[in-house]
This record gives sequence, structure tokens and C-alpha cells, in this order.
Amino acid sequence: MANMFPLSSDGQDPANLRDINEPLIDHSEGQLFLNEAFKIIIEEVLCKGTDVKQKVCEWKGPEDLALLLDLELRAEGEPQQRLLQRVKDVAKYSIKTSHPRFFNQLFAGVDYHALAGRFLSEALNTNLFTYEVAPVFVLMETEVLRSLRQLVGWTEGDGIFCPGGSTSNMFAMNLARYRLFPEVKSQGLWAVPRLTIFTSAESHYSVKKGAAFLGIGTDNITVVKVDEGGRIIPEDLDEKIKLTKSRGAVPLLVSCTSGTTVRGAFDPLDRIADICEKHNVWMHVDAAWGGSVLFSEQHRHLMKGVARANSVAWNPHKMLMAGLQCSALLLQDTTNLLKKCHSANATYLFQQDKFYDVNLDVGDKTVQCSRKVDCLKLWLMWKAVGSIGLAERVDKAFNLVRYLVEQMKKREGFHLLWEPEFLNVCFWFIPPSMRGKEGNADYQDRLANVAPVIKERMIKQGTMMVGYQPLGDKVNFFRMIVLSTLVSKEDMDFSLDEIERLGNDL
Amino acid sequence: MANMFPLSSDGQDPANLRDINEPLIDHSEGQLFLNEAFKIIIEEVLCKGTDVKQKVCEWKGPEDLALLLDLELRAEGEPQQRLLQRVKDVAKYSIKTSHPRFFNQLFAGVDYHALAGRFLSEALNTNLFTYEVAPVFVLMETEVLRSLRQLVGWTEGDGIFCPGGSTSNMFAMNLARYRLFPEVKSQGLWAVPRLTIFTSAESHYSVKKGAAFLGIGTDNITVVKVDEGGRIIPEDLDEKIKLTKSRGAVPLLVSCTSGTTVRGAFDPLDRIADICEKHNVWMHVDAAWGGSVLFSEQHRHLMKGVARANSVAWNPHKMLMAGLQCSALLLQDTTNLLKKCHSANATYLFQQDKFYDVNLDVGDKTVQCSRKVDCLKLWLMWKAVGSIGLAERVDKAFNLVRYLVEQMKKREGFHLLWEPEFLNVCFWFIPPSMRGKEGNADYQDRLANVAPVIKERMIKQGTMMVGYQPLGDKVNFFRMIVLSTLVSKEDMDFSLDEIERLGNDL
Repeated sequence: MANMFPLSSDGQDPANLRDINEPLIDHSEGQLFLNEAFKIIIEEVLCKGTDVKQKVCEWKGPEDLALLLDLELRAEGEPQQRLLQRVKDVAKYSIKTSHPRFFNQLFAGVDYHALAGRFLSEALNTNLFTYEVAPVFVLMETEVLRSLRQLVGWTEGDGIFCPGGSTSNMFAMNLARYRLFPEVKSQGLWAVPRLTIFTSAESHYSVKKGAAFLGIGTDNITVVKVDEGGRIIPEDLDEKIKLTKSRGAVPLLVSCTSGTTVRGAFDPLDRIADICEKHNVWMHVDAAWGGSVLFSEQHRHLMKGVARANSVAWNPHKMLMAGLQCSALLLQDTTNLLKKCHSANATYLFQQDKFYDVNLDVGDKTVQCSRKVDCLKLWLMWKAVGSIGLAERVDKAFNLVRYLVEQMKKREGFHLLWEPEFLNVCFWFIPPSMRGKEGNADYQDRLANVAPVIKERMIKQGTMMVGYQPLGDKVNFFRMIVLSTLVSKEDMDFSLDEIERLGNDL
Repeated sequence: MANMFPLSSDGQDPANLRDINEPLIDHSEGQLFLNEAFKIIIEEVLCKGTDVKQKVCEWKGPEDLALLLDLELRAEGEPQQRLLQRVKDVAKYSIKTSHPRFFNQLFAGVDYHALAGRFLSEALNTNLFTYEVAPVFVLMETEVLRSLRQLVGWTEGDGIFCPGGSTSNMFAMNLARYRLFPEVKSQGLWAVPRLTIFTSAESHYSVKKGAAFLGIGTDNITVVKVDEGGRIIPEDLDEKIKLTKSRGAVPLLVSCTSGTTVRGAFDPLDRIADICEKHNVWMHVDAAWGGSVLFSEQHRHLMKGVARANSVAWNPHKMLMAGLQCSALLLQDTTNLLKKCHSANATYLFQQDKFYDVNLDVGDKTVQCSRKVDCLKLWLMWKAVGSIGLAERVDKAFNLVRYLVEQMKKREGFHLLWEPEFLNVCFWFIPPSMRGKEGNADYQDRLANVAPVIKERMIKQGTMMVGYQPLGDKVNFFRMIVLSTLVSKEDMDFSLDEIERLGNDL
């Protein structure tokens, strides 16, 4: 970028030579470009990207990819055709997360109504802080939150969309803290006793990150024991809360999980609620992953007791396929705690002498200023298929998982670690050379290496994507997430065949 | 939603009656819908929405609007035609923030290349946490951050895109805290002495929100005096840091502003840097609004000294028109402070035994887990017009402001509060009935009421949008933000005519 600011021959800045009426952007030319880019998106991302005959990913190492993409930003602009080629290249070398063989994360698939809502949100380019500038979205967010709360079992309450479940979890901590000690907002943590957060070792890492970020510190998280299924043991929670109190610290919040990240376990909410009530501790449910079971009559029992929580974090961008990001924090509170806790009352934005009800200016409920519109995509998708359609998606995913597990049990090399409670299928693939040799000294070391090698091969060949990790004393195992409605039995069978093909020689 | 879960006649959940191979989503039908929605977006948002002959907003009060939009979410889905009508309605009743007469916020206008990048990001629906799942965007974000840092004046450093400038400011606070007291991450604020943050009364409210959220508390913000132009007085800063130290608290961070929210003032960075260096205090520059002057040879002097800062928050979604959100936090640090401070080392995501360099897994640098791709829109726009094109936009906006101010001075009723240093034009409109009556007892009260009434009228008629607020002892005044390259002299003249038309009878 040595020539980032070339001067014209007379030393004047080139912009000053132009008339200030010159718009610098040509609408029809711009719309033409957008139209061409849209065609590429349809073709490369939505047609090819969802076609099982195409690759999930076109792997390149970082050096090769950087060279291919020519990422450097320069002084001069580029012609439209070259820019369209860049759009194509970005699409080509990006992972196709909507591909039926992408099982790598807690999101996948594509919903076209949601996607239309996302394009519309982007084009409208507004900021969800005041009714003045986002009238439609202030009302829509309120209604979407109300409908989500209704599924939780609350007829009243509050809430807000956050940039991800981690933020929702942090908000819950901050609200719990403010409820107990409102002076913390002005005086900081030095003015209050030591606070303790309770969660299981299998909860999401955002509990740790949140405790650190909010100044509480990760040492002030007490880890509660889990049962063989990865679910909090309520008795242990009770004991640890008592112990905390006896040591003079204040139990702040229990962060339960509905759908843990690795195993997909659901903590027993009803029994945890008993304990939280007894000790007057804020009960937060991190249902970022599992919350969507609330749509299903058949599976909502997994979250029995959720209505007794103080707060619930739920990400419809995960299994409902609303698109990143769509993360709701739902609250039972009716005392305006969210606004009291987070507000700064900026007079330039939240003027009190407006001609409409200033309670519609929801922006002061969050610690963000600019806040994206994340409700439209969910709203439009929900309007399109109804609660019944969303329930069907949930049920279908469970059924596919059941099918996958059945098939897995029929094959010799697949060792399921736990019967899945949710959509996380955790298993080892045991290559033929290792079968029956569990007693060997190097067995665990060898096993730990199987998943990484198979993963490398599948990525480099682009045939499928599935995650792996260790957990506790279990060495690396695959965690296959089955959530997309676009997935079929054939994709399940393929996945097992493919893992065998990639790992049989190990 | 009483019928949210209707059962089929035999009491079975309807999803179970379907074959699990049924995809539930039809790609060609979905793409057809997306195509129709795209046409509506082009027509309603991008053609009509940028046409001066059309309204900026179609005002409806909340009750009327809720009725019109039929927001309720139901059990059953809706036909495609009705959904397309909903897309139209959302577009119709939303504010046209790209309209040449939208001067209401620190964002406006539209850039078609950025918008194409945004659509592509949405369609690719990925998560910027690992190279595995976002190879293109990991490299692209690195390059965009590098180029932004280069404009700051750093050849090395670190950074990350955040969901808004408020988050960037909070990250800076957390990094400053961790640099001084790394034990705070595990032990919390109880383990460290009281910390103090310094900023001016005219800085953004996110400094307050951040201090509260991070557990530091708003009382531990020391407000530094500003001069007549709204800029920090370095001598006062120096004194207040000394005073803080003498009282046993630890000066943590000075949050300077480049482009304050109301006045557009630029704090004197070079002189503040002297003081920060002397006292070893973290120097953060909130350049969310003003940062883009760095593209302009003519105006970058406003941020002279920025290269001496520890961190800079810069939102290209504001005056560069990259689209909400695009917020970079830039760091001079080369010791991996960002990752050390924020990481939780989750083994399910950031496995250390991957086959590629795991330093490419940037997700542990943030407190988010899911993180949207915010670099592509800026990258594509930058590729399209080059640094020269972006500089032209900055220069044009300054020139338009100069023109607006000249015209304002020629008219009787417009009273400029300060000569603008940036793109914020702050003025009172004095209706004819009030002119020459500054001495009257009710003058200030009447004046305070002028802007709200004119604002109400302009919104209800939909002709333009401009913000107002009080500041210190100045009663409500307009703050007109001129940043879009799509704005002409004619729009400037129109705005003044329109304010006269709407306010002459007051």
C-alpha cells in the first residue's frame, strides 16, 4: 500500500477536483453488479453448495489460498468483471455449511425464507435501537420474543436478541448480579462480596469467558458434578451452594444447559429449580443449542421445568436454521431489570421528549449501541412454515439421529460413546487393525489419532465434514451433528461408509 | 398461539407420519421465493428507497403499524404470495436509511459492492472461529485488519472485528485490565486495586456501559474537562490521573474520542499520548465515527498521534457505508494479549492436534463463540473503489458539510452552535416569532421545544430525518450528519428549506 494516497500532478487531493454533486456511486451500475452477484450466490452457494454430488469444501492450505484470493487492498479500484470473479472465488473456497454432508457444527442447512429475511435486513441497513429508525423491527422483535417466551411457558417477561449465545449468557450473569446488588453498576465489584457461579464441566465455554469478562473471574466458577449422561447432579449442586455460603461467598447464578455442546445433554431443570428457589439463586438455562425442542410436543419434555428459570438463552440460528446470528435472551422478569441494569440514558439517542412512547426505544436494554436486526429472518421463516413446520424439523432431526445410531450399531467399527439424548452422535471409529486390542498399551494413543487423520482426509477430499474432540478421559471421538432437514437416510449411510473408507487402513 | 401444537386425529405428532427422507424444504421453490424477494428488495429498498421523490419514511404509530403488519406467529404456515406481500410491507414501513435525506444517525447511504458482500456472507452462513470452517474469511479478516492498522500507522499488531463499537471499547478495557493484572481473569476484580477509567463527558455512552458491564462501575470513570470545541483538555487529564494515583486507585485506561457522537470533536491524541506514556496508562481511541478520516490525506491530521495509542475502535459501517455491522478493534500489541486475555481453549472447537497451523483459529481471541463474518463487505468495497475511492468519499462529505454551513450562515433562522470539526452540523432553528427575543424569560424553554416539533412533523410527512438532542447547557438542537456520497447540494438546500417550512409557524 505504498501508493495508498497518490496526489494529482498539481499536488491537490483528487477528490477536490471533482464537483461535490458527483454521487461517486452509480445506482444502476451498482444494482447491475448486485444482480450479477445474486446469480453467482444462487448458482455457487445455493445450487452447487447444497448438491451432494459437489464437494463440501475445496481445501487449500493458507499459503495457497492467500495466493489464489489476492487479498491485498490497494489504492486503485478494480473493474466489475474482476470483482464478480472475486465473488465467485470467495464462494468457491468457502465451506458449504448448507451441504447435506456438513455435520461439523451446531448449525447447518439453509432456509430460504430466513435467507430472504436476511437479505432484506441487510438492504434496509438499520439499527435496532429506536422506534424512530426501526419501527417495524421494534414491534417484530417484541412479538418474536413473546412467542419464544410462550414456548418457554411464560405469559409475561422481557428479552432481547444478542450477538450470539455467549453474550446472552453474559447478560444473564450481569442481570443476576444487578438484581442482588444494584450498586455494582456504579461502584463495581469492589463494593460487593465475592460472587460464585455454578455450572457443569460440560457447559459451554462462554460461562468461563463471561465470568472473566464481567470481572468475576474464572476461579469463582464452581464446577458441579455430572452423571453418566453429562447432566448436572442436583444433590452436588445443593451441597456446593451450601459450601459456598459457608465460606462467605454469595451464590450468584446457576448456569444449566439444555443441550450441551459435545454430548447434547439436558440438565434436569425441575430439580435444579428446586435448589435455586431454596437458595434464592438466579437460574439461567443455556438452551442455545437445545431450546428448539420446545417446538416439539414429543421432545419438549427434555426441558421440563424451564418455566421456573429466570432466564433462557436460545439460538434459533442453530437447529431451526434461521441463519447466523439469531440468539434470543428470554427473561421471566417483569420489573424492567434488563433496562435498569444496562441503560446509560444517552440523551442524543433516547430523548425523553419524543412524540411517541419512548418505551419503544429498546436500545437501552443492551450494552450494544449499534445492534443488527436479527428477528426478521426468524419471523419470516416462522410465518412461512408455522410452529407446526418448525416442530416437524425438530422431530425429523431426532428421527434421523435414531436411524443413524441404528445403522452404526449394525457396523463393526463404530463404537457409540453414549446413547444420544439429543442430536449429537458421539462415537469412535475403530479401524480393523485395532479391533479386539483394547488391552494393548498403545491402544488409547492410537485411538486418539484416528479421528484427526480421518478428519484431515475428509477435508482434503471435500466429501464431508464432522467434528471431533476429547472429553474427560475419553480420547478424540467424532461428534456428528444431525440437524438439517435437508439431510436424508442416504446421507447417514454415506457418512458411515465414508468414515470406513477413510479410516480402514489406519 | 393456543393451537401451536395440534395433534393429528390419532393423537400422533404429524412429523412422525412423514418419511424421514422428506427434505421439508424444496430448493427450487425456495430459490424461486428468494428470487422474488430479491426483486422486491431492488425495487422497494434500493430504487424507491434512494429516490428523493419518494418518502424517507412512511410513518405509522405502533398500534396502527402492528395491525398492518399482522405480526403474530401461528401454528400454520402461509402461502408464498402472502409471504412476498409481507416482504413488501416490511420494506414499505421501514425507514429508508439509504435515502439522500436521511441525516439521522452516524450511518446512511448504500454501497452496492458492500451489499453484495453482505448477501454473500449471509448465504455462506459461516462462523468466523476456525480456519477449518471459514478459511477464506480467516485470511481476509487478517488482511483487512492489517490494512486498517497500516492507516493507523502500525506495521505490526493485532485486532478483531466486533459486533459494534461498544464491544470494541469494552475489549480495550478488558485488555488494559489484563495487561496490568493478568490474575484478574481467574480471580476477578476483588484481587486487584480499584481501577479508574478517564474519558470526557462527550465521549460515547458505551464507556459507561462497558465500565458497568466489566464490573468496574460507572463511578470509577473520571470525567475529564473539554475545551470549547468538545475536546479533552490534556492538562486536566494529567491532573486527574495524578489525583487518582494519590488516592490509591490505579489509572487503567484513557478513552479518547476521534469524532464525538454529538459534536464530532477530535480529542488531541498526540498530547494525550504524552500523558498516557508518562503514567503508563492504556490509551484507547474510540474512532468508531471518525476513524475513516485516516483514508484522507487532507483530513487525517485530525487523528495525529493515533499511532501512539494502544488500541483503536473504528467502524467502517459508519461513514464508509460498509453496512451494519463492521466494527474493527485494532491493537498495537504483538504479544498475543487479545488471545491470552479472552481465550478459554475449548477443546471441542480449538483442538491443538489439527493438521494445519492452529494459530489460524482466531475465534479464541474474542468472548463471542458464534461470530459473524464482517470483513467481506468492507474488503469487496475496498477492492472495488480502492483507497483512493474511499478517500474521495471522506473528502466529499467534508466538502458537503462546508457547503451546508455556508448556506446556513446565509439564512436568518439558522444558528450554528459550533463550527463543525467533522461531519456533525449542530444548529438551532429559530422560528421567526422568536428571533431577536433571546432575552425573554421563556426563550430557552420555547427553543427547547422547536426541534422536537419540527422532527415530529418531518417524520409524519416523511420528507427527511435529522436528529436532535440537548448537550450541557444547550437546549435541544439539531445534529445533522452528512456522510453519504449519494447526497448533493440540492439535498442540503432542501433540508434547510424544509426545516424552515416545518418550523416557520412555531
